[in-house]
Parts: sequence; C-alpha cells; structure tokens
Amino acid sequence: MRMHPKKHLPERLERCGALYITQTEGLRGNWGSAVFQNANPICVEIGCGKGNFITGLAQRHPDINYIAFEKYKNVLVTAMEKAQALHLTNVRFLSDDAADLEKLLAAGECERIYLNFSDPWPKNRHAKRRLTHPSFLALYKAVLPSGGQIHFKTDNQKLFEYSLNTFSDFGLRLHNITFDLHGSDFEGNIETEYETQFSQQGFPIYRCEVLFD
Amino acid sequence: MRMHPKKHLPERLERCGALYITQTEGLRGNWGSAVFQNANPICVEIGCGKGNFITGLAQRHPDINYIAFEKYKNVLVTAMEKAQALHLTNVRFLSDDAADLEKLLAAGECERIYLNFSDPWPKNRHAKRRLTHPSFLALYKAVLPSGGQIHFKTDNQKLFEYSLNTFSDFGLRLHNITFDLHGSDFEGNIETEYETQFSQQGFPIYRCEVLFD
Repeated sequence: MRMHPKKHLPERLERCGALYITQTEGLRGNWGSAVFQNANPICVEIGCGKGNFITGLAQRHPDINYIAFEKYKNVLVTAMEKAQALHLTNVRFLSDDAADLEKLLAAGECERIYLNFSDPWPKNRHAKRRLTHPSFLALYKAVLPSGGQIHFKTDNQKLFEYSLNTFSDFGLRLHNITFDLHGSDFEGNIETEYETQFSQQGFPIYRCEVLFD
Repeated sequence: MRMHPKKHLPERLERCGALYITQTEGLRGNWGSAVFQNANPICVEIGCGKGNFITGLAQRHPDINYIAFEKYKNVLVTAMEKAQALHLTNVRFLSDDAADLEKLLAAGECERIYLNFSDPWPKNRHAKRRLTHPSFLALYKAVLPSGGQIHFKTDNQKLFEYSLNTFSDFGLRLHNITFDLHGSDFEGNIETEYETQFSQQGFPIYRCEVLFD
C-alpha cells in the first residue's frame, strides 16, 4: 500500500524530536549511555504502527527502555505523539525496519524483541519478507543475548503456523503458545490498534514466546 | 464410554492369535528376536483403534516392525482382522495402554511413537490422562533412543495447543507443524478411520513431529 503523506507531517515529526532518533551514528552499543542515560534493559518492537502497544508497555515498565521501529512515518508520528502526550522518557522511535537491526544494536544489546501483527506476506515467493523468516531470526540472534526472547502475536493463522516452524527449525525453544490469546488465561496483554479491531470481530489472536538459548 | 462386548469377541480374538500378544513376559528388550525374528526398527502406535493407520503403515514399510496398543478389545479385534486379511507379518497388537510402555519396551527399543486422535480429555482436572501430558512424555523418553520421534495428529485444537506447549516445555524440538494437514503439502499421510470421517466434514487436522535429542 502506497500511502499519501499526512498533512503537516514534517512539522509533526519535528515536534517529537526528543523521542525521534534520526542520527544513528555511534549509537550501536551505546543506547544506554548515549540515549536513555541509564543502564536499564532494552527491548525492541519491530513495526510499532500507531504505538498503542509500545506506549502501554513503556508506561507499565518505567525501568525498561524501549526502541520502536516503524518504517512508515505516517503512522510513526502518531505513535510518537502518544508517547509525548504520556511524557514517556523510556521509549525512542526510529523510522526504519528490521533489516538494519544489526547496524543499530550491538550483540546482546537488546533483551527482547516484540513482533506484533507483522505483514503475513501470504505468497510463498514473498516468504523472505516475513519477519519470522530464518534470515530475520539470524538478525534477531545477532542482537539478543543468551536467554533473549521474541514475543510474537498475529491474527494470521498461516503466518503463525509458518513461524512456529521457522522458530523450531532455527533451534529455538517455544513457550506459552496460545491459539486464542483473548480466550486464554494470559495476563497483562497490551493490545495493538489492529488487535482491538480484529478481536472485536471475533477472530482469534495467536501468540507465542521464543527463547534463544 | 462403556462398550458392550461384541458378539463372538473371544473367538474372533483367538483367530488373530498369531498377531495378538497376550504373554509379555521376557519380551522387554527382545521384540526383534523373540517376536519379529529380525533386527528391523520398531515403531509403536498408542491407541490404534480399528487399525487403518497401522495396517496402512505396515503395508507401506515391510522393513519396519510395528507394535499397536489399543486398550479396547472391541476395536482392537477389527484392527487385527484387517492385519490378518492383509497377511501382514510386521505388526503385532496388544490390549494395553501407554502406562505400561516402559514395562514392555527397553530403553531405546522403539524408534518412533505415533499418537493419532488421542482422547483430548478437555477438562483441566483430567489433563494427566492426555497422552501428551509430561508424565507420558517421560514414558516415551524412556523407550525412545536419541533421535527418536513422536508423530502426533489430532482434530482437537485445544489438545494440539496443549501438546505443543508440553512438548516444548519438556525440551523437545518440534518439526513440520501444520494446522491443516489435508490442505498442506505433506505427502504420504495415512488416514485413521476417525480422521477420514472428521476431515470429510470439513474440519482441519493438526499434526506435528517431535524430536527427542
């Protein structure tokens, strides 16, 4: 989908300057000292959309730093405005995608990666673009420590099935697999915008956690 | 479900005597030499029902020995009659359940265990009876070699979800997970009686393979 730029996008992005990372040189390995000015753990969301999830998480865990990736500035700006309205100091945003993860984060610099409702890329010839393709798992492995985790949610059964297999075949351990998150006893779920809309229509949400030994 | 004994059950069982194992003393560790009279690999099905699956498999792989467990003699007799009609020499039947597995098979004596459409025991307080409960996984581990496998099929989504978690939490590696076996590109599936009936009604069949490292 090609999106038309929103009105006043540059001005709105600029007003979020304090949370918006545009200069990344020298950040790799130094996010704690250079950006967050503390030594708290760092977690990443790939594809934060309008930011409901990451701002909810950052509010709940002020002692964890969050970096949110979103390649579309049209939605990223809404996420940043939310974070700003909440006066969050423990979250930063990048207009980037997962492919650059290794350039931006040092080995083991990020404890956990959240993947929420990633594009399923349903055609087989597009499988390489799925964020749970083995090539992306290799990228995640490069920035996660031993014991690092991926937390993955999707409404797309085919993507979930595909991902359980790529995780397993990559040698990763699965945990807390659910085929119906909202009907399960999982506590503390934070919904994304998409999730709220989709689950209200009665569709199940799939979720699992993945452990890098 | 309490079943009424079938008419002529004892006579019918007796006519299958060559395939029906009723004396198990001394068999543990000696199935190859004492029963099958060869050194071929041994695979087990827990709960073979009327035997479509195990007889199909035994026909397809004459170089593998099969032991089929079925606690209900009413259905076991039909499975044995099928095997007899096909003149199969590489399959034997036991009127027993998984709880006795370790008494009947030595460590590593069986290469692979098939679990097909096991009772889902949907109530939480009956979870211990599910054939993928950790206590059963420990039994399977006791008779499988390193590299041994479980091949698991079910139409019950809740049992499948439960089982993916017990397998993973037990430290086992999952492979070839599918949420729709009949719509997948899996080749060589052999249907159970129950599976044929159920999938004809349009319900998906879940399947996965589990590897004991």
